[in-house]
Amino acid sequence: MSWQLTEDHLEDLARGAAVLGTGGGGDPYVGRLLVRQAIREHGPVTVLDPDEVDDDALVIPTAQMGAPTVVFEKLPSGREPETALAALEKHLGVRASATMPIECGGINSMIPLVVGARTGLPVVDADGMGRAFPELQMETFGVYGVPGSPMAVAGEGGEVTVIDTGTDNRRMEWIARGVTIRLGGVAHIAEYSMSGADVKRTAIPRTLSLALRVGRAIREGRGTDPIACLAEALRETLYRDLRVLFRGKIADVERRTEAGFARGRAAALSFDGEHKLELEFQNENLVARVDGEVRCLVPDLICVLEAETAEPITTETLRYGQRVTVVGISTPRLMRTSEALATFGPAAFGLPHEFRPVEDIVPAAAQG
Amino acid sequence: MSWQLTEDHLEDLARGAAVLGTGGGGDPYVGRLLVRQAIREHGPVTVLDPDEVDDDALVIPTAQMGAPTVVFEKLPSGREPETALAALEKHLGVRASATMPIECGGINSMIPLVVGARTGLPVVDADGMGRAFPELQMETFGVYGVPGSPMAVAGEGGEVTVIDTGTDNRRMEWIARGVTIRLGGVAHIAEYSMSGADVKRTAIPRTLSLALRVGRAIREGRGTDPIACLAEALRETLYRDLRVLFRGKIADVERRTEAGFARGRAAALSFDGEHKLELEFQNENLVARVDGEVRCLVPDLICVLEAETAEPITTETLRYGQRVTVVGISTPRLMRTSEALATFGPAAFGLPHEFRPVEDIVPAAAQG
Repeated sequence: MSWQLTEDHLEDLARGAAVLGTGGGGDPYVGRLLVRQAIREHGPVTVLDPDEVDDDALVIPTAQMGAPTVVFEKLPSGREPETALAALEKHLGVRASATMPIECGGINSMIPLVVGARTGLPVVDADGMGRAFPELQMETFGVYGVPGSPMAVAGEGGEVTVIDTGTDNRRMEWIARGVTIRLGGVAHIAEYSMSGADVKRTAIPRTLSLALRVGRAIREGRGTDPIACLAEALRETLYRDLRVLFRGKIADVERRTEAGFARGRAAALSFDGEHKLELEFQNENLVARVDGEVRCLVPDLICVLEAETAEPITTETLRYGQRVTVVGISTPRLMRTSEALATFGPAAFGLPHEFRPVEDIVPAAAQG
Repeated sequence: MSWQLTEDHLEDLARGAAVLGTGGGGDPYVGRLLVRQAIREHGPVTVLDPDEVDDDALVIPTAQMGAPTVVFEKLPSGREPETALAALEKHLGVRASATMPIECGGINSMIPLVVGARTGLPVVDADGMGRAFPELQMETFGVYGVPGSPMAVAGEGGEVTVIDTGTDNRRMEWIARGVTIRLGGVAHIAEYSMSGADVKRTAIPRTLSLALRVGRAIREGRGTDPIACLAEALRETLYRDLRVLFRGKIADVERRTEAGFARGRAAALSFDGEHKLELEFQNENLVARVDGEVRCLVPDLICVLEAETAEPITTETLRYGQRVTVVGISTPRLMRTSEALATFGPAAFGLPHEFRPVEDIVPAAAQG
């Protein structure tokens, strides 16, 4: 069923998108301000269930591209996302029936809603990452055969670039990243244009709804147990299993912006000082180790939450002394196939570990 | 009158293009091999006088982009120039009637001939620099109102990028340079698409013929006085005045590849050791000073020629101990207007000098 997304949904959606951002994805609170303004000017956004999209419809996803460190300091001011969409439509010679997120974590859960509000296009409740990832080839769309090319990149000066690397999505990312750096570190993009049939086949379904559900569960659980409330809310989704990996205080953060990415590591100590958590990230959290043992691995979600409120904490805002609960969340089957893991599993990030589902590494009884 | 360019023209053309390259422009001898092969496979190239191009015809110039230092080591192997042309035609939704050089100096005198031989398109005998320049906004086309955008960039892996920065040709250069660096330092481009009427209004006319004439005069003058023969050949062209700026031996060369360009300086001492020449270059020679006094300034041509044969020497092949004659050559009026000088005069390269025509700085009687 399609539904109308209004200003009232945005607080929960932003919180949920930050959880699904697993530390990266750009700050959804910034995106929220943009969506709020667009909805105030143009009215609510129609969100389409993927099952409602015609097989023949053309869907063009829209997004922001850039290092979160830069995004945080450089708000999209103009019409760049629509400019990218229009450039790709013109290049293809076809108008889009809908837009869609490429990633449901972080600011990119919001950008298609801005486009939807401003253009009147519906937004499909699905995405191509099922979380946030740092690179454009890391999308289930591409994993299952939809090429990212041609893609359009729009800069804040009205510059438009259309990139076509055929079926080589990694090469597309490489060139688009170069263009984005020349545009000042942030750009807006339209890519992975596809049919409704391809949406149903390759997208992770209902991830806008998921973000909303996650954000709402955390809010409603405050005062009692927000983590338990979140775990309960996830049980009926494709992200079924939540495991508490660690509780403690942030002891160390090391972060640098390099080749257009935010890379680094963080460490936390348990409250009794007996145990140590280590996180590595490239924009997003990639691996969590406790006392040297792997507890959760990309593409499963590793989320750092503030200990009392379960408010998500991005790698940009990690600080010494923060009291945190770190949770692992299982991802849908479509994200754990061998093709998917080859594109965005541990090896794709240069990690030496074989992927294991978080629910297998951490049995339900053993958590905490 | 249109004429057929055959393999027999290539030796003179390459030499002349190297002279007009004023030290840069990429090695035309490499381009010559490509044209020779294309002519052997497909037959001669039709060269069109600009006066013969219909006012309504669409002309799309083609070229190579990249630092000469890289170009020298990385031959274009495939169909990149035609790929760029075809991508721009597709983007515009129109087929080109002809191609044209964007610069008549260096390898870019040759690339449109490769395209002409392979596709059967005629090549217009004109260009947008009247020499070689390091950046894409430095074209008379742009100076007189033809936008470079949209432009197409093709890489050797079949990657195609279309860039549109409206009327901002400097921004186009900036983004295209970033794409070219990501493509490995060299790419092929199609840009400044224009009508035949715009060719007649904005291009420097008959510069392929000019290169051929320059190369032939030097060859025919060997044994007697190739510099005098070159001066004589230029007298009837738009490049009327040749001045000998210096004769001596190269004493020092300093060269680096930086941000995609070859930058540096060179010095020569006169044979009697009494006088010193200094050259500064960014791909091309920008200023020649003798004993600290400016003798010739961009956009006028500063050409380093081997002392005995008048064979042109690029900045890439300048070596300690070479015996050279350095000449200055006046450029057409279209390249010396205030609009033109704002785009590619001394100030555009950060030089502190006001432009003065070489024939005014060095009176005919005083040369040698």
